[in-house]
Amino acid sequence: MYKVWWFAELTPEYKILEEKMLNIIKKNYRQYGYTPIETPAVEKTEVLTAKWWWEVKNQIFWVYGLAQGSEDMKDYSLHFDLTVPFSRYVLDYRWELAFPFKRSQIQKVWRWERQQRWRSKEFYQADIDVIWEENTWNDYLFYDAEVVSVAYNTYLEIFKEFWLETKIKVNLNNRKIISGFIDSLWLANKLTEISIIIDKIDKISAQKFLEELNEIVNNDEITQKILKFCRYNATYDNLNNIWIELQIDNEEFKKWIYELKEVLSFMYKLWLEKDKVIVNLSIIRWLAYYTWTVFETFVEWDRNLGSIGSGWRYEKLTSYIDPKTAFSWVWFSIWVTRMEEYLFEKIDKSTLQKTTSDFLIINFEETQNESLKLYNKLINEWKNVEFYPESDKLAKQFKYADKKWIRYCLIMWEQELNSWVYVIKDLKSGESREIRL
Amino acid sequence: MYKVWWFAELTPEYKILEEKMLNIIKKNYRQYGYTPIETPAVEKTEVLTAKWWWEVKNQIFWVYGLAQGSEDMKDYSLHFDLTVPFSRYVLDYRWELAFPFKRSQIQKVWRWERQQRWRSKEFYQADIDVIWEENTWNDYLFYDAEVVSVAYNTYLEIFKEFWLETKIKVNLNNRKIISGFIDSLWLANKLTEISIIIDKIDKISAQKFLEELNEIVNNDEITQKILKFCRYNATYDNLNNIWIELQIDNEEFKKWIYELKEVLSFMYKLWLEKDKVIVNLSIIRWLAYYTWTVFETFVEWDRNLGSIGSGWRYEKLTSYIDPKTAFSWVWFSIWVTRMEEYLFEKIDKSTLQKTTSDFLIINFEETQNESLKLYNKLINEWKNVEFYPESDKLAKQFKYADKKWIRYCLIMWEQELNSWVYVIKDLKSGESREIRL
Repeated sequence: MYKVWWFAELTPEYKILEEKMLNIIKKNYRQYGYTPIETPAVEKTEVLTAKWWWEVKNQIFWVYGLAQGSEDMKDYSLHFDLTVPFSRYVLDYRWELAFPFKRSQIQKVWRWERQQRWRSKEFYQADIDVIWEENTWNDYLFYDAEVVSVAYNTYLEIFKEFWLETKIKVNLNNRKIISGFIDSLWLANKLTEISIIIDKIDKISAQKFLEELNEIVNNDEITQKILKFCRYNATYDNLNNIWIELQIDNEEFKKWIYELKEVLSFMYKLWLEKDKVIVNLSIIRWLAYYTWTVFETFVEWDRNLGSIGSGWRYEKLTSYIDPKTAFSWVWFSIWVTRMEEYLFEKIDKSTLQKTTSDFLIINFEETQNESLKLYNKLINEWKNVEFYPESDKLAKQFKYADKKWIRYCLIMWEQELNSWVYVIKDLKSGESREIRL
Repeated sequence: MYKVWWFAELTPEYKILEEKMLNIIKKNYRQYGYTPIETPAVEKTEVLTAKWWWEVKNQIFWVYGLAQGSEDMKDYSLHFDLTVPFSRYVLDYRWELAFPFKRSQIQKVWRWERQQRWRSKEFYQADIDVIWEENTWNDYLFYDAEVVSVAYNTYLEIFKEFWLETKIKVNLNNRKIISGFIDSLWLANKLTEISIIIDKIDKISAQKFLEELNEIVNNDEITQKILKFCRYNATYDNLNNIWIELQIDNEEFKKWIYELKEVLSFMYKLWLEKDKVIVNLSIIRWLAYYTWTVFETFVEWDRNLGSIGSGWRYEKLTSYIDPKTAFSWVWFSIWVTRMEEYLFEKIDKSTLQKTTSDFLIINFEETQNESLKLYNKLINEWKNVEFYPESDKLAKQFKYADKKWIRYCLIMWEQELNSWVYVIKDLKSGESREIRL
């Protein structure tokens, strides 16, 4: 991918690949009833920054016009995700929407980011969300399972499209489980500090992890227990064992473990095989919105690529805009731009395309009218075909096709005018054969 | 369309319609070899404003970040069209591109506009362009005809998709013809002033038109001649008559008339019928970039809607960025956002969709596992289907389907568990029938 001032710029090979990916995502999202919507590129700055001013104020791009009359625009910024715009959207349209409302939203977002690999200041997110009013007293755990299953099917299809092996794992956790665990250690007052360290577990050594923890809890036995918890290789079948192995006696904790099992069970009843989703009790993403379940998706052998899809469940997201409202929701997003950059690196380069055309019709003055008829005919047959714009030497026209990676040239010679025969030349193999119209 | 701060916001009914439209546009553009590319949402402000500072400075949205490190972004603005970004793109990639380079670019653009009907501060443009270096000494007139023909086929397909009658006319002109005509009147030094008046011909009365012209040329006979020229009902067959009828003796003028005929002749050899493109000698758009051919597309009975697609041919567009370069190009753009707003008004509202789902699977506790299997099965058959997220009263689930305009509900009753029979209920007709899996 080219990056112009670290904004993504897509040349033909790249854009053709992106479109294939976006088409698969759209088709999948729609198939499961995630209805598309679209919000403006801008939101009021006060809405964008209401929740975590310190977190986002350095990341947003403000917009303003120079015209006097555009003073009304001075408080707007480009959205940095699709979640805040969607919360505003839900509040604006709440009386029209049918809840639970399932939406998909595939748009660009803008974030000022330090220049680094796999990051761009402008990128596509492909979100699915389900949202409902909390006063329905309903958890709809099914949706935790559904969003992951839908995303997984989408990943599978994308990797298949590009002939790549799929080794994708969704990491599943629940913030309430960590809270319950820390609570069972009588450390609830230190939850934030401990969580910040747990969040770093994949980036620091076990030694350092224990040291940092010990500075907070000052108890070797407990820090070991926390490490063991984080590294616990949990599966659907052995999740219950954790409170025996770690001697955790806490009803809240058990309750959330059972709930996690229910989510897993729904996933299996949908179409996810057991090895596709792993429970990872150390996934915490401390500063994110979520309050409940959390998902992160990794390509198994490329962890330093980062997550290619994230999701969570959240309570009361709209309350920071309107405190009287309470909506729950489940969200999953495929990080399109990062993923396509990865795919572009991995795929067999000979499958790339520089143009969508399969055929070039050669233009000779003597047969131009007939060649135009051939162009018409092929267009009506839904072929992808170009017509060379003026009569010229054959070699020059071949060179044009070659430079654009157009494989087949169609040639109508003057002597064949009445026979309606044209020649199809395969520039890859060099072979030619005649076809009668 | 909802407009949030006069930026477009698309609810499900609307976004589903837009996607249908965009899919048709993409499919068509690709079929004829207009390769997709994408440029960032921002460009350097100095590039965006280089050509017509006074024209665009009030229309652009500048972007800036608050972070210290984002100082590097202070000179960037959102693009207001896709032409300036594409000129920059061509210069950046000129050594990689195969010319004539045919591109399509479908992206949003942003313009500060006074709030008015059919306008939005954020809108989609769907552009096709062909660009080539002028030192090839080649006019490629074929492309004037091709871009219009491609756009026309696209319009046809869109109107057909929404069951609307197509009464679209492309208005064709050539700026060089007007110059030649004014020149033949020995008024070349007043070309700009006269052109500004001609540009207004559809908005003012003939009386006013003559008056304003007379202030400049001070000669009744000549003003009448200009009016006659503008109103001349030119067709392919009678274009030559114009210099006899108006007694125009100017070789330049004749040359461009012949050229216009050649463009028309290519259009007819492609697939445009004669009544789809009219020559309109008063189409001038004085302040636009073009120097040669120009196109404007109107829905016949809705002229106050404005143009639903524009195009032109231009010489040396990149020269204002790099004076040593000279590229010619032909451009056509479908004004997607305006057109979809129009379609949304005109179409039969009963064809709108609030969701992409055709089926809702009813969720009863007793048959939940089997219903999930049905969900799996239908997903594998590529059906668009939703699963109700928890077991509940039938009436409530029907109400959900009804509110989302999902037509069919699939119900598996407990007593049919072993027979694998489910009921399909059509909420529109009220009819039910049984289906065996």
